[in-house]
Amino acid sequence: MERKIIDWLQQNFSADPPVTVGIGDDGAVLEMDRAQLVVTTDAVIDGVHFDLRRHNWREVGCKAVAVNLSDLAAMGAEPIAIVVTLVLPHGTKLSQVKNLYSGICTFCSKWPYSIAGGDTNFASGPLMVSITAMGRLALNRQPWLCRGAQVGDEILVSGSFGGSILGRHMAFEPRCDLAAAIGSSFQIHAATDVSDGLVFNLGVIARASACRAILDLDAIPIAPGAKKMGDKHSPLHHALYDGEDYELIVVTSPAQSKKIMSDKWLAEQLTRVGVITSGTGIIGRRAGHPDKRLPIRGYTHR
Amino acid sequence: MERKIIDWLQQNFSADPPVTVGIGDDGAVLEMDRAQLVVTTDAVIDGVHFDLRRHNWREVGCKAVAVNLSDLAAMGAEPIAIVVTLVLPHGTKLSQVKNLYSGICTFCSKWPYSIAGGDTNFASGPLMVSITAMGRLALNRQPWLCRGAQVGDEILVSGSFGGSILGRHMAFEPRCDLAAAIGSSFQIHAATDVSDGLVFNLGVIARASACRAILDLDAIPIAPGAKKMGDKHSPLHHALYDGEDYELIVVTSPAQSKKIMSDKWLAEQLTRVGVITSGTGIIGRRAGHPDKRLPIRGYTHR
Repeated sequence: MERKIIDWLQQNFSADPPVTVGIGDDGAVLEMDRAQLVVTTDAVIDGVHFDLRRHNWREVGCKAVAVNLSDLAAMGAEPIAIVVTLVLPHGTKLSQVKNLYSGICTFCSKWPYSIAGGDTNFASGPLMVSITAMGRLALNRQPWLCRGAQVGDEILVSGSFGGSILGRHMAFEPRCDLAAAIGSSFQIHAATDVSDGLVFNLGVIARASACRAILDLDAIPIAPGAKKMGDKHSPLHHALYDGEDYELIVVTSPAQSKKIMSDKWLAEQLTRVGVITSGTGIIGRRAGHPDKRLPIRGYTHR
Repeated sequence: MERKIIDWLQQNFSADPPVTVGIGDDGAVLEMDRAQLVVTTDAVIDGVHFDLRRHNWREVGCKAVAVNLSDLAAMGAEPIAIVVTLVLPHGTKLSQVKNLYSGICTFCSKWPYSIAGGDTNFASGPLMVSITAMGRLALNRQPWLCRGAQVGDEILVSGSFGGSILGRHMAFEPRCDLAAAIGSSFQIHAATDVSDGLVFNLGVIARASACRAILDLDAIPIAPGAKKMGDKHSPLHHALYDGEDYELIVVTSPAQSKKIMSDKWLAEQLTRVGVITSGTGIIGRRAGHPDKRLPIRGYTHR
């Protein structure tokens, strides 16, 4: 069965430059020339990041690659290639694996990434898809890190937040286009993507940069899903603490922020939600209310 | 708990050149300059590739990295960095994860590879360790592929074969030194490592190169383990068909083979076990016996 899958992969995925050797050998070769390579890895597991009783294999493949591409975008890198490790439950059908790979290729035509290799296993246990993605930084461009935010900087975020569990966590588009557009023309001090929650991931930037973030709570873009959760928490609370939004947080100087927001398309994608000050932690600010320190907690998968 | 592990990793593993950004950010950055990068990925799973009732976490980590380094060696590449994805059973202790990473670092001092990132998950299911390893080819050196064997070439193998299930599959040293020594001075037409069995992996070379391999059955180096299996199969059969030897198969011209074997150290590491001819498949040759086509079957994990 594994052999069948490999044969099928070899027939369906060729190695394109800069991958000079792809699926079917002991490893893949990427030919670089004075370039910086960004590598990231993320796995999704049945019962943790998705639920096969509700999600199909194509959706699982889509999510598995999207979370990795989101990490590349958060580094300011352009996807080049991925390698895919599968742990398949006994009894998995070839058609299911094909559907999985069709999901993995969801964004292939938009941002051409080669499937450069992988490892397929069967085990008693839940379906797991682990992807390592490799990306390229444009020449002379520095990667966007979590450290680097400076006092006085402004905080921009893409999209909206909260309630992704209602469906968006399985079907989001990683912000590669946005990252490329920003990276090509502007200087960014720090960036990350929101996998564990807006407050949590902004907290990572604050801690890594040894500074404080002030969040303008009236400005946080709240996703439709956050308003449909219908539990004891407010939509704002969901926007701040739910995980798996996979939006970008970008920190930059006020001058660069102004330039970014003067671009019509970028201004549609981004919202200014706060500023960086000296201190530690995350402060929530709201008109007519005293400042309040926001507890930094990450979203935990069931 | 995941946070604790990440903190501990950050404290214990720094990013060294060519990794300019390591654990703790959204991705890792490898700075390349006119170099070819080799990427390989392989996972090990409890109940499939190891058995936690008999093997400890350090041994598991050692095997997880060794199988990947073996793939890099088989491509003629020198290890640079790895990323590690873990699926941990609920209830895993930090000490177990530390032991696992201590195993993953078994070869770090010998061939310095950075742990450049990773992803740690908990799930109901068996322990799984998935590693993606990145290696570098020396400047102007071509990767060793499975295709490329030519009629008239000789087949060399490292070490000995069979019975690795008795213990060696958990505690082998990947052939990185040997690959580096061969690669620095000799032209290799094709190579691979023996993960699924000598006949099977040589069969991959034969098929990829559209030629036939003649194996001199009297010359096959038989491992001590193959003689201790004590089942219905002969030691030779175990040497030909057992998996997980993680030895190198190297195919080269008779002239290069002669030069290689005139080096004292290399001659100690390698054995000439056959030749490449036109045709297909693998033929077993034995003095006093007619040639016999060897069935190409891979070792299957229980």
